Amino acid sequence: MSTKKIVIALVVLSFWRANAQQRIPEVEALLQKMTIEEKIGQLNLLTPGGGVATGEVVSKNVEAKIKAGQVGGLFGVAGPDKVRVAQELAVKESRLGIPLLIGSDVIHGYKTTYPIPLGLSASWDMELVEQATQMAAREATADGINWNFSPMVDIARDPRWGRIAEGAGEDPYLGSRIAEAMVKGYQGNDLAAAHTMLACVKHFALYGAAEAGRDYHSVDMSKVKMFNQYLPPYKAALDAGAASFMTSFNDVDGIPATGNKWLLTDLLRDQWGFKGFVVSDYTSLNEMIAHGLGDLQAVSALALKAGLDMDMVGEGFLTTLKKSLDEGKVTEEEITSACRRVLEAKYISGLFEDPYRYLDSKRPEKDILTKENRALARKLAAHSFVLLKNENQLLPLQKNKKIALIGPLADSRNNMLGTWAPTGDVSLAVTIREGFKNVAPNTTIQYAKGANVSDDPEFAKKVNVFGPRIEIDRRSPEVMVEEAVALAKNSDVVVAVVGEATEMTGEAASRTDISIPDSQKKLIQALVNTGKPVALVLMSGRPLTIPEEFELPVAILQVWHPGVEAGNAIADVVFGDYNPSGKLTVTWPRNVGQIPIYYSTKNTGRPAPESDEFQKFRSNYLDSPNSPLLPFGYGLSYTQFEYSDFKLDKQSIGQGESISATVTVANTGNFDGEEVVQLYVKDMVRSITPPKRELKGFQKVFLKKGEKKEITITLSPDDLKFYNSQLEFVSESGEFEVFVGTNSDAQLSQTFILK
Amino acid sequence: MSTKKIVIALVVLSFWRANAQQRIPEVEALLQKMTIEEKIGQLNLLTPGGGVATGEVVSKNVEAKIKAGQVGGLFGVAGPDKVRVAQELAVKESRLGIPLLIGSDVIHGYKTTYPIPLGLSASWDMELVEQATQMAAREATADGINWNFSPMVDIARDPRWGRIAEGAGEDPYLGSRIAEAMVKGYQGNDLAAAHTMLACVKHFALYGAAEAGRDYHSVDMSKVKMFNQYLPPYKAALDAGAASFMTSFNDVDGIPATGNKWLLTDLLRDQWGFKGFVVSDYTSLNEMIAHGLGDLQAVSALALKAGLDMDMVGEGFLTTLKKSLDEGKVTEEEITSACRRVLEAKYISGLFEDPYRYLDSKRPEKDILTKENRALARKLAAHSFVLLKNENQLLPLQKNKKIALIGPLADSRNNMLGTWAPTGDVSLAVTIREGFKNVAPNTTIQYAKGANVSDDPEFAKKVNVFGPRIEIDRRSPEVMVEEAVALAKNSDVVVAVVGEATEMTGEAASRTDISIPDSQKKLIQALVNTGKPVALVLMSGRPLTIPEEFELPVAILQVWHPGVEAGNAIADVVFGDYNPSGKLTVTWPRNVGQIPIYYSTKNTGRPAPESDEFQKFRSNYLDSPNSPLLPFGYGLSYTQFEYSDFKLDKQSIGQGESISATVTVANTGNFDGEEVVQLYVKDMVRSITPPKRELKGFQKVFLKKGEKKEITITLSPDDLKFYNSQLEFVSESGEFEVFVGTNSDAQLSQTFILK
Ligand SMILES: [Mg+2]
Ligand SMILES: [Mg+2]
Ligand SMILES: [Mg+2]
Ligand SMILES: [Mg+2]
Ligand SMILES: [Mg+2]
Repeated sequence: MSTKKIVIALVVLSFWRANAQQRIPEVEALLQKMTIEEKIGQLNLLTPGGGVATGEVVSKNVEAKIKAGQVGGLFGVAGPDKVRVAQELAVKESRLGIPLLIGSDVIHGYKTTYPIPLGLSASWDMELVEQATQMAAREATADGINWNFSPMVDIARDPRWGRIAEGAGEDPYLGSRIAEAMVKGYQGNDLAAAHTMLACVKHFALYGAAEAGRDYHSVDMSKVKMFNQYLPPYKAALDAGAASFMTSFNDVDGIPATGNKWLLTDLLRDQWGFKGFVVSDYTSLNEMIAHGLGDLQAVSALALKAGLDMDMVGEGFLTTLKKSLDEGKVTEEEITSACRRVLEAKYISGLFEDPYRYLDSKRPEKDILTKENRALARKLAAHSFVLLKNENQLLPLQKNKKIALIGPLADSRNNMLGTWAPTGDVSLAVTIREGFKNVAPNTTIQYAKGANVSDDPEFAKKVNVFGPRIEIDRRSPEVMVEEAVALAKNSDVVVAVVGEATEMTGEAASRTDISIPDSQKKLIQALVNTGKPVALVLMSGRPLTIPEEFELPVAILQVWHPGVEAGNAIADVVFGDYNPSGKLTVTWPRNVGQIPIYYSTKNTGRPAPESDEFQKFRSNYLDSPNSPLLPFGYGLSYTQFEYSDFKLDKQSIGQGESISATVTVANTGNFDGEEVVQLYVKDMVRSITPPKRELKGFQKVFLKKGEKKEITITLSPDDLKFYNSQLEFVSESGEFEVFVGTNSDAQLSQTFILK
Repeated sequence: MSTKKIVIALVVLSFWRANAQQRIPEVEALLQKMTIEEKIGQLNLLTPGGGVATGEVVSKNVEAKIKAGQVGGLFGVAGPDKVRVAQELAVKESRLGIPLLIGSDVIHGYKTTYPIPLGLSASWDMELVEQATQMAAREATADGINWNFSPMVDIARDPRWGRIAEGAGEDPYLGSRIAEAMVKGYQGNDLAAAHTMLACVKHFALYGAAEAGRDYHSVDMSKVKMFNQYLPPYKAALDAGAASFMTSFNDVDGIPATGNKWLLTDLLRDQWGFKGFVVSDYTSLNEMIAHGLGDLQAVSALALKAGLDMDMVGEGFLTTLKKSLDEGKVTEEEITSACRRVLEAKYISGLFEDPYRYLDSKRPEKDILTKENRALARKLAAHSFVLLKNENQLLPLQKNKKIALIGPLADSRNNMLGTWAPTGDVSLAVTIREGFKNVAPNTTIQYAKGANVSDDPEFAKKVNVFGPRIEIDRRSPEVMVEEAVALAKNSDVVVAVVGEATEMTGEAASRTDISIPDSQKKLIQALVNTGKPVALVLMSGRPLTIPEEFELPVAILQVWHPGVEAGNAIADVVFGDYNPSGKLTVTWPRNVGQIPIYYSTKNTGRPAPESDEFQKFRSNYLDSPNSPLLPFGYGLSYTQFEYSDFKLDKQSIGQGESISATVTVANTGNFDGEEVVQLYVKDMVRSITPPKRELKGFQKVFLKKGEKKEITITLSPDDLKFYNSQLEFVSESGEFEVFVGTNSDAQLSQTFILK
């Protein structure tokens, strides 16, 4: 680190850590020179038109605006040489030469696409999550990016919502740990370094609670629920040093997030102490018109006054703020404050020191899609898979079997990367068919498509917006199934790769029916009917309702959408080179009618028996158990783990003290493997209705066959706290029950008293 | 009215109307004489063990408690002579002789059972609703009841929730009008009169928003949503003079309603000015233990301090309040206040003047199940039916056709009354088969059951808790369908009575799948396959998902559960003696995955086209339109209505001014009939995201064939108001759009400006 860099790092550190407002002299000096138009210009984030620039790097319009000092940042531009063109326009041709922020959506890898975030979260491995995001930062910065629209930390408990794929699931504790790891991975210890980028925490706030699971729909919840269940991951990301936040599309308490002063100022800045800048989501400022809040000038003024600093794409700030200032609807101080925050971010990124820091033409080849990166992507994918069922210990397969590899996703390169991988390249993805050949070159593998992902051409059209994902075969469904069945009969074992095409989840990809499409259900049943052993490799961006498939005598390996190394990673696990260790981070319902369903639900005043036996005048359904098909934290291994000797180090503790739980975990099966030891806490009595239990600790542990280890998880004072009716973060005296085990149904328990 | 009665009435009037706390001298004098134990005793509501007393009128235990002054009221006792035994115990054998309140659940008729409340609401006829509840009061008071646990005014937008059957649907405006009408019907103008009873508004509050539609589940929403969407009907019932409120089972903002001081005191009493008393729901005080709020002593103290006055069944108050008083956990003033409210209710009911006022042995024969009452029940039922579809104008049927009357509900006396009619007598109910014979005695009617309500014996067991509702035939489903099909082929027309058994809805009767059970779906399809014209008479206590049935070439008449005159009323409508005029008061979804779905939804920032055409990056689903199968307010007639000449009387108004909308409605069809003219308002811009439109007026109008009328609906200043972020009830200047038409999709519109 150069001296100058150290100085910057120290300034940054003291800046971020300071409670009092502290100024960066370079930024203040610059602000003194700026006209009001130039200040407003910095609040404007533009895109020249998509991630892949086909003609000029920047369109004429954007070029002119950059020169005029009307652009604070760009996204949708990549590659050092292309970005340099834009950066030079800003630095050399605008009056004050302020460099641009260059943003991008790098939500699960830049070019080396790794599993969708929901899959990555299933690894429960915070080191891996940090390594993954570090790699993403290294690749993205090598390509000229200095600001990433990630992590997405929205708690989601509705699998109908397509963007559940982009988050870390349902739990605020796990979600917070993952949010921290991602921020650390992207930002590192030195934001000015050439291999780190600004993180952008999204979507602030509550986007994951979209009503009826329909994307962009209204959100509504009490403050006490927000604070206890939905806000913690945003706060955790902030506390990990996240440099920017993105507002969400939804309303919060009836006011769209992008114009919500309580959210962006009272909570985020005043209460939580956020010092960074806030950007809107794509045209979310303008969308406040449709929300019913007013015209463009009105909603732009509302957003600025609420605390929004940068307007993505919509140019509401650019075109109306001056008018609003002239009419007394906003103040110069408000514009200056927003501008300052944008400039500070640029300063912190090292762009004032060197506007071309991220524009080294040699880096792409050196840093992107390297062998090491692909190896990491393969490892990340394998670690994200969740073994849902393993009838007759069918998996892992021996490499000398004759395999019928069947299914619409078994040889479908276009569906490997997963949703929203705009910087990835589908042509680089390894299919399952290829992966099987790579990993088991001497195994006989016969392939048949067997079914279309869906037989419905209208549905396919909606899914194929970014390219062919559902390709409906010319042959009839019946002919395809027949071919697959014939192949199955002629093999030792069937591996059927089924589930969702990538764009069946993600943004604007909500489903009211989250079962496996009928075309594939029929295929699965036909394959099982052959009597051959069947392993289902299930791909999806969300929990699916699979009550019927789960009853079949099959193995089920949930692989999400695994990324560029999909086929290799799946083969690694199917053939036992890696023993699966993933655990669900979101509850899998039996049917859509159970939604929302999540493990940390309230007990209610009339709880139904845990046995799921129906009792009249208890809180249950006539036609479905309350329990899910698969609980949060669930996941099998090729080996078995046994828990014993669970104890706490104290029977009672005082306020502010910690308590440690110890349990012995033994690998009693026939494979080496990893287990995620999970610890849940139940607050027996509270001044507000407590959840039945809450995750408050976990540890991923590797155990050789026959090995056992003593695992200790410590509960800090904060782990016993919650937000009470007055939204104070407190712990209350009384009894707590601690559960430890392999998933959220853990039954081993101990109690202690908090005095 | 006697002079004394007038005096009481005046005292009551001034008592209720007074803003300042005003005391009733008789009550105050009594309070002076009471011991703390006697005061606590008044807070105790007991039941001797069910509505039908099979042995002694009151159990030994209850008898002793009444004598000891430990009982404030009873429920589950009925009949003047039986109630008199209890009342004499209180009056003659307790130290102070304080009479008992006698409560009952009379939610859709006492003995003369009329349609379930959701059905009654579909009449949109406030006069009829008042007549119905007046009749219920006359019958119940004739049987010794002076306090009714009705109206249930919980807004419900989740058809999975079984108790949606007990309410008035999804809309706060319509729900408020119905709440008012019911309170007026039960209470009349003189609560002391022998034919009126105290209303009890339930369940306060938000019970209808039970999470995942599962009964008794947790409830969560923002305050701003509460005030705008869920609280208005409670407030309307209060403003109509309701004498008591019942707390709900759920938590509100994390605190169970029964112990929620914000709800019971800050809002209900301090802000809304409620002067009556608050009772818990059945053991809801004790259930706060399971909620996680503490032990019985703790939750009892919490409830008293929160503002609960009477503890239903659980005896938490009775057994712990003295101890809590001694320990300083509650104050004597708190106990006295609760006792005062209970005593005031007794005073107002006229029980101090004459404890036996409601115990006239001659009244039951004179007032209960009279010919007039049954005639009214028949009228109410006919008015509740909603014609969902009428392919080829199949309905009404001519009386000279040969009819195949088919279906598990066509001749099922046990399923006519509907959920929670504990005071009714199923044996008195008229089946559809009987009704057809009554109304069309010369028509050939051949009957076959055709299918079981459900073929699943486990499901049947859960539904048959109050008696046989689903009776599974000894014959196989195939044989039953065959018989029905044969009958159909041998007839001119098929009437199939299908749907839900009564206890498939109601309390603790939530369903995750709200379609017609498979057994009946098969029957319907088989009947349609005969090619004979088919009219479905659909019974249910909730919206059902019937996308497939709705596509069939059939007529569908939705009849809910119609009550004791079911068969006659259905025959009246099927044969055209009454032209159906009911309108849905809750949206019918296409599938469970659309829930919650309701007409007054928000627009969102990315609204999908009204055409239901899918657009990427808009708020819609991949696999379902946003629109429901049937919108709120929907219902057909045998005739047609045309709307024209819609105008407003002003183009702009000032704050505090009214505006009137006028429209011409013409009956252009071939039958006389009634239409519910509906008026919706859209606030174009608001400081919080406005609903797409909101019902703000309606008028039910009768038009002879060929007749037309000009209908005027006036919007009052309050109709333009909403609760803003600060929960102030305000109207904001700006443009409003007014829609008028036959359901919530009304397209005729006009705009005006509020200055
Ligand atoms: Mg950097
Ligand atoms: Mg506690
Ligand atoms: Mg009366
Ligand atoms: Mg009750
Ligand atoms: Mg307005």
